[in-house]
This record gives sequence, structure tokens and C-alpha cells, in this order.
Amino acid sequence: MANLIIRSVLVNGSSRGIGLELVKAFLFKQGPPVQSIFAACRNPDSAQELKSLSSKHSNLATVRLDVTNPTSIEDACSDITERLNGRGLNLLINNAGIAVFHSLYEATAEDMMEMYKTNTIGPMLVTQAFFPLLKKAAQENPNEVKSCSKAAVINISSGAASIERTPLEFSVQPLFEYRCSKAALNMLTRCQAEVYKTDGIIAVTVAPGWVQTDMGGPKAPLKPHDSVGSMMKVFDTLTEKHNGMFLNRKGQTLPW
Amino acid sequence: MANLIIRSVLVNGSSRGIGLELVKAFLFKQGPPVQSIFAACRNPDSAQELKSLSSKHSNLATVRLDVTNPTSIEDACSDITERLNGRGLNLLINNAGIAVFHSLYEATAEDMMEMYKTNTIGPMLVTQAFFPLLKKAAQENPNEVKSCSKAAVINISSGAASIERTPLEFSVQPLFEYRCSKAALNMLTRCQAEVYKTDGIIAVTVAPGWVQTDMGGPKAPLKPHDSVGSMMKVFDTLTEKHNGMFLNRKGQTLPW
Repeated sequence: MANLIIRSVLVNGSSRGIGLELVKAFLFKQGPPVQSIFAACRNPDSAQELKSLSSKHSNLATVRLDVTNPTSIEDACSDITERLNGRGLNLLINNAGIAVFHSLYEATAEDMMEMYKTNTIGPMLVTQAFFPLLKKAAQENPNEVKSCSKAAVINISSGAASIERTPLEFSVQPLFEYRCSKAALNMLTRCQAEVYKTDGIIAVTVAPGWVQTDMGGPKAPLKPHDSVGSMMKVFDTLTEKHNGMFLNRKGQTLPW
Repeated sequence: MANLIIRSVLVNGSSRGIGLELVKAFLFKQGPPVQSIFAACRNPDSAQELKSLSSKHSNLATVRLDVTNPTSIEDACSDITERLNGRGLNLLINNAGIAVFHSLYEATAEDMMEMYKTNTIGPMLVTQAFFPLLKKAAQENPNEVKSCSKAAVINISSGAASIERTPLEFSVQPLFEYRCSKAALNMLTRCQAEVYKTDGIIAVTVAPGWVQTDMGGPKAPLKPHDSVGSMMKVFDTLTEKHNGMFLNRKGQTLPW
């Protein structure tokens, strides 16, 4: 993120794990500082590390946001619109996600629904709500090429979203409800890319790798800092040609 | 279906369109007749053509089944288990599906949920419930190669499920909620293929093409009879090597 001039970014699911690390990366990035970093999560009051950071950094604001609740999304959007004071939002990172683990023999409709609600419908609703702010950011720099410093949506997906690769990895990580929701998120991104491109916005889906978080568990080979460090370099390079693509944290294309 | 000896098949969503045509194709196929054809739909009482057919053909039974309702699935499974009288089920065709059409700017969480419930969770729940009967069918012919005459699940998907192809087709057929649910169905199939293969069952996802049905509309280039005729030839050829694959009605592999 050394090169890009990002004035504003919103990261949801930012109380811990990859989301928290993304917030820190924007806060401490090299180059011009980000003017407005919005760290959204369900319960900002209990997000100790975020609270501590925001008390020290005036460009970081915590925002209450439950991506499964349309009213909560609306409230967060009003809040951020006010704070941006007439300016647009450059970058939306839909990072909030959940995972449950059941076998295909035992999974219930409710398991599937919960996962879809947070991992797929959440990013759809949040992007819908913030579309006017993203569009405004794109209009502020009409001559700039499409990029994360102009207007972009990044959906945090997973290597487990790859339908192609599933047979190779299923025995180790079945996670089938999660896989279904993330494959659908990849499709959503592909559709968002088609719809929003006319307004100067790009949409990309990125797999952070298997990371040591509450979701990834202690056996994961990557620390959040390493995954996010790699992803930030990728965000730096995104242009129109990446619109609608599925990338890993190193910027390589993954098979659908 | 000239070559295969299928003793029993269940088609859901069979009151009209592709489902009804599949039922007819099994009823009037060349070669050895299918002993038990179960035509499942939400309201068999109002499915006139099915009722008429079942009054004339003793090997065709209509079954009440709402794929979004676990109790209904359980009841249908008990009914069919009883009718099979100790025998297994060779072929399950998850054909029931719905489509709604909203723009990405306007779609609601409810639209997304409805579509996922029927198009993705439905096939998961129905296959879960009928797994013991499919397994039984596979055990009846332990030495036979995997095929539709041994034990198979066919999920009726769509060309619109292809994430890869979406940019080429989105302007003509946006259908994004449908696309998300069907991409997830493809992922589900891929997972089912991994889980059920140890019990001699194959799982394949098949795109019937754009067909003149209530869903496809009158502009569609294919008649149900033509689409189903092609698919039946493909079902005839399915073996272990097709397990977990995404095929069009001609048997060609589609990109995820």
C-alpha cells in the first residue's frame, strides 16, 4: 500500500483475526496516511484492541455493523456517510465471515442458511448500501484508472471456495457449508464486477490463505500479519484487468 | 437410457418443465422398463399430467415432496422406502429449482435465501435423506462399475452456474441470485461426490441448457423434450470418471 493514495477504507469483521490485522495494516502503512479508516464489527464495545487503537489514532473510527442485519447496515452507512462529510469511500473490504463444521450426513438447513447469510448475503447487502459512497469516490477522480485508491470492493474469500480444487483438499478440510457459501461469494463478486464497473468500481475476491485465527485454528501455517502483508501488496496492484478475478494472497489467479 | 438397467428413479420438481419431461423419458425409454419411477412435486393433486400418466402406468407413482421442508422430505422418503419394499434407489435427480429476477441494486436477503433454500439446500437435504436407499442400491450390485444404473445423484444445475462464463452472459441474463445458488449447488455436488463415492454412489451436476419452460420463458431455444433427450444419453454414459463433474446436456465439461 506504499503507492496508493487511499483516503478512506471500511473493513468489516475487524474485531479480530484478518480483519483486525487489515485495520492495523492501513493504520501503519507506508506512504501517505489513510485519512479515514472505518473498523466495523458487531460489538465495538467489547473489541478491546480496536478500542485501544482508535483512542490513539484520530483517523481510525470503530463502527457497529452486523452484516446479517439490514437495519444495522443502514445505520452504519448513515454513520460513515456523515463522518465522510460529503466525500466518497475508496475501499470496502468485506471480511466478516463465519465457519461451522458438520459432515454432509449431518448438516442441517439452518447450518447452511447461517453460513450463506453471513458469508454471501452479507457482502451483497453491505456493498449495496455502500455503493453510493463508492460511486462518489470514483466520481471524485474521473480520470484515474480503476484501482483501490479510486473505488473498489474486495471480498475476502477462501481457497476452499475453489470448486475445481475441492477434490484435492476435501479429505483434510471438508467444510462443505463454508465451501458452498464461499463459491457463491465468488459468483457474487463476478456479478458485482459486471454491475459496478460502469461506475468506475472494481470488485475482486481474494483468498487470504490458511491463517492462524479463531477460524483457521492454531495449526494454520500463516500468521495474520504475513497473510495481510501479502494481500496489501496485491491490493496495491489491482486495476481494471483484475475486475471480477479470484486471487490468492500473492496475487495469483485461482481456479474457480 | 437404452443400455442402462435402472430399476428405480426419483425425480423431484416433476409437475412440469424439465422434471415432467424426465419422468416421461424414463417411462417411455427404450430397453428394459424402469420398475419404479417416483415423480415428486409439491402438489401432486394439482399436477394433472402426472396424475394422468400415473393412472395409466403402474410403474409410475407420484409423491408429495417439498424440498425446502425437512418433514416433507422425511415423509416422502418413508413413502418411497415402503414402496421399494427392501430394495434400494438407483437414481436420484434433484431437479426442483426456482428463479427470481432482481437487480444487484435491489435484491433483498429474502430473495437470496429463498433461492438458496430451494436450489442448494434442497438437493443437500433430499440427498441426505435418500442416501441410505442409494447406498442400498449400490450394495445390491457390488461388482458393477459406478453408473446411473448402480447408484447416482444428478443435480440439475445451469449454464448460469459457471462463474468463469458469467462475464460473457451477464448482460443478457443477470440472474445473480440464481447464479449464486447454482454455483453453490455445483460446489455441493463436488463435495457430495467426495463423500458418497466410498459407498459406490456417483454425483454429477448437469446443465440442461436454456429450455422453454415456465422458468426459461418462450424465447428459450430448446424444447424440454430435446434437452431431456440429450441429457438421457449423457446419463447413459456416466461412470466413476464423471464423479463430481459439471456437464452440459451433451456431456461436455463446463468450466466452473
